[in-house]
Amino acid sequence: MTLSKERRIGRHATLLVLADDKTEQQDLIDRLPWKSCNGKVGSMDSQKVVAAIETAAKQTGVIQSGVYRETHALYHATMEALHGVTRGQVQLGSVLRTVGLRFAVVRGNPYESEQEGEWLAVALYGTIGAPVKGLEHETIGLGINHI
Amino acid sequence: MTLSKERRIGRHATLLVLADDKTEQQDLIDRLPWKSCNGKVGSMDSQKVVAAIETAAKQTGVIQSGVYRETHALYHATMEALHGVTRGQVQLGSVLRTVGLRFAVVRGNPYESEQEGEWLAVALYGTIGAPVKGLEHETIGLGINHI
Amino acid sequence: MTLSKERRIGRHATLLVLADDKTEQQDLIDRLPWKSCNGKVGSMDSQKVVAAIETAAKQTGVIQSGVYRETHALYHATMEALHGVTRGQVQLGSVLRTVGLRFAVVRGNPYESEQEGEWLAVALYGTIGAPVKGLEHETIGLGINHI
Amino acid sequence: MTLSKERRIGRHATLLVLADDKTEQQDLIDRLPWKSCNGKVGSMDSQKVVAAIETAAKQTGVIQSGVYRETHALYHATMEALHGVTRGQVQLGSVLRTVGLRFAVVRGNPYESEQEGEWLAVALYGTIGAPVKGLEHETIGLGINHI
Amino acid sequence: MTLSKERRIGRHATLLVLADDKTEQQDLIDRLPWKSCNGKVGSMDSQKVVAAIETAAKQTGVIQSGVYRETHALYHATMEALHGVTRGQVQLGSVLRTVGLRFAVVRGNPYESEQEGEWLAVALYGTIGAPVKGLEHETIGLGINHI
Amino acid sequence: MTLSKERRIGRHATLLVLADDKTEQQDLIDRLPWKSCNGKVGSMDSQKVVAAIETAAKQTGVIQSGVYRETHALYHATMEALHGVTRGQVQLGSVLRTVGLRFAVVRGNPYESEQEGEWLAVALYGTIGAPVKGLEHETIGLGINHI
Ligand SMILES: [Mg+2]
Ligand SMILES: [Mg+2]
Ligand SMILES: [Mg+2]
Ligand SMILES: [Mg+2]
Ligand SMILES: [Mg+2]
Ligand SMILES: [Mg+2]
Repeated sequence: MTLSKERRIGRHATLLVLADDKTEQQDLIDRLPWKSCNGKVGSMDSQKVVAAIETAAKQTGVIQSGVYRETHALYHATMEALHGVTRGQVQLGSVLRTVGLRFAVVRGNPYESEQEGEWLAVALYGTIGAPVKGLEHETIGLGINHI
Repeated sequence: MTLSKERRIGRHATLLVLADDKTEQQDLIDRLPWKSCNGKVGSMDSQKVVAAIETAAKQTGVIQSGVYRETHALYHATMEALHGVTRGQVQLGSVLRTVGLRFAVVRGNPYESEQEGEWLAVALYGTIGAPVKGLEHETIGLGINHI
Repeated sequence: MTLSKERRIGRHATLLVLADDKTEQQDLIDRLPWKSCNGKVGSMDSQKVVAAIETAAKQTGVIQSGVYRETHALYHATMEALHGVTRGQVQLGSVLRTVGLRFAVVRGNPYESEQEGEWLAVALYGTIGAPVKGLEHETIGLGINHI
Repeated sequence: MTLSKERRIGRHATLLVLADDKTEQQDLIDRLPWKSCNGKVGSMDSQKVVAAIETAAKQTGVIQSGVYRETHALYHATMEALHGVTRGQVQLGSVLRTVGLRFAVVRGNPYESEQEGEWLAVALYGTIGAPVKGLEHETIGLGINHI
Repeated sequence: MTLSKERRIGRHATLLVLADDKTEQQDLIDRLPWKSCNGKVGSMDSQKVVAAIETAAKQTGVIQSGVYRETHALYHATMEALHGVTRGQVQLGSVLRTVGLRFAVVRGNPYESEQEGEWLAVALYGTIGAPVKGLEHETIGLGINHI
Repeated sequence: MTLSKERRIGRHATLLVLADDKTEQQDLIDRLPWKSCNGKVGSMDSQKVVAAIETAAKQTGVIQSGVYRETHALYHATMEALHGVTRGQVQLGSVLRTVGLRFAVVRGNPYESEQEGEWLAVALYGTIGAPVKGLEHETIGLGINHI
């Protein structure tokens, strides 16, 4: 059940959202038989963040649209990542703050053993703060789930 | 109040904990007039994680031991980082899980304006899971505070 | 202060929301000198769930409309039940999920000792998930309060 | 992706923990190609509740001991059930309370579509209160996860 | 159901814990047909705070020892007050912090209408911080419940 | 690092929001080289509470508008105070409740040592309850932060 060093899926996803030029990190992921997508979302509505990630993951085929268990796995990974971003209450506009986030979803097998199957990593990186440009600091979140 | 791209303190701290070879990332930080430290801690006791970070930050001079406001700034940044790691309840052993974490604390001025002064970033990366080797997945947390 | 086995109020309320045919369970409750009501509510707005339960409890006389302490007892029992339903953040639409719930409110004396007086149980059962039919799983919550 | 009425796995698990005589409900579950186990645990240590459920599920073969993804699925389902039991903070002894719980773990396919595969339900029912016999009321929790 | 200005029970309890000389505030409370007690507790164990308040309230007759509904009312009021003190996670030692608190429990009728009966206020005031003298700041909490 | 008894900033701020006639308490604060403001806000929208406090603190010069670190210090102090007011979930309208609050923000040096610099206290006092006049009880919150 050991995590493979080359296949630390959360590290891959986080390096992808941290990369200003994604080419190098994307290449590393593309060498693995994995699926991934990334994008940006900015909002005071937390549900828009959840929706943007789900939409991207479905449109790029990272998860299957017609299978609820895949949506469920992604939903909980996203919520876990949002805990890192919000640090206490998974709320944005209702506590007068907004986020500007890059997100990445990576799907692959991080463990040495084949039995462990596929897992999902959702990484978020960006800024959180008052709804005024500049009144913000960085924030990160990572959610990991089996799929 | 704009965040300086080269001085994204949270990104620096996170890249440091993600780096298997820290040299390159440490060099980037050392080019700035900043202070930083890093280390490792593994425990089922959440207070030991908090203590390890505080001890390292004080021993390396990242924060001043004799000034409570610096301890206070670090404490809240650490707690915020632990929210990302624990994703819901800042508890380890009491919910039968353990962590093996690398940590980094970086202190510097991330904003263009001098008035914004110094800030602190606490980054955590490692694994969380059952107290059995291998029954674990990755986890990340980042806390940012003014100091 | 022992809980009476026949008067486990939370169990009664939960069996009522779980029953597809409520007759049998309702009969059991009706043999006790208790008050109860039940209904359904589906929404992405958590406040609508709270309001539906309060309205039903007041209209059926389970609690008295003009007495705040009764509203207060019901409110906290409802919030506790919502913790079971939402498991972490008492939020629905703001984290892009919706519920379809049956609810039951039961008021009675669950303890052997008369001194313990009346208590309230709020039980919830149904589904929670994405705002798309079928992308959902079951959920349960129970709140108990003295009244 | 519709939930099958006869295979509402959370309802099955909850009826099992609510049953004083488990025969009838166990028979209903045994007619399905499902796995299940149940037991009792009383403690002020929340980790003992988590451990008792995991141990029972592994010993009865409801989940496979050697596969982390199954332990992970059970862990999160258990934590979700504990949210219903604790309603706010997943803490027992540290806030001076104790639980006496029956638990059930059921594994099966609750959805009409085969693609949805297996899911896990963890149900908890019992009492929560001060560490003094009788100073307690009922409590329920249900966690559902894909496996 | 209007709150009586002279009988704002939470304000009375809070002024009592804030008073360095309690005589004047205690006199104001004693003019009302109310019961109250106060004391001090310092600990890293959150359960000791809960226990100290319960013990004082029972020994002074503010609540009846033999009646669970009174213990239940006090427990939830105490937990609500601890939310104000801990601001996020009701944890002390497990996140490496300690408290030194004065507490007050006041029982009386704060509403104009007699029907509203008795309520309970638990007020806490003191310091919270690292387990080192001086590395601490002030903290306050108030819980209100019907009894 | 000892807290000065005369300069307990949280106690000053709380006494100010508790005072029906603020003159005496305001005088005590005005004798210190401190800044303070106070006001009222009533809303079901939690963001309006946050905004009212920020606006008052900026308009009265308690914090500097153009410096993000001051807004950041105030934001976290306000969020901590809201934890005391909401006791579990920092939500108002979304769980069908409303607040009527007095607030005070005090900025000053509470510690004996000059090194500890300035701190901020945000105190809140008022009522919380159903959006119906009278269906409410008192609530208090206090947040403290270095600035
Ligand atoms: Mg996990
Ligand atoms: Mg912040
Ligand atoms: Mg209770
Ligand atoms: Mg789920
Ligand atoms: Mg209340
Ligand atoms: Mg603090």
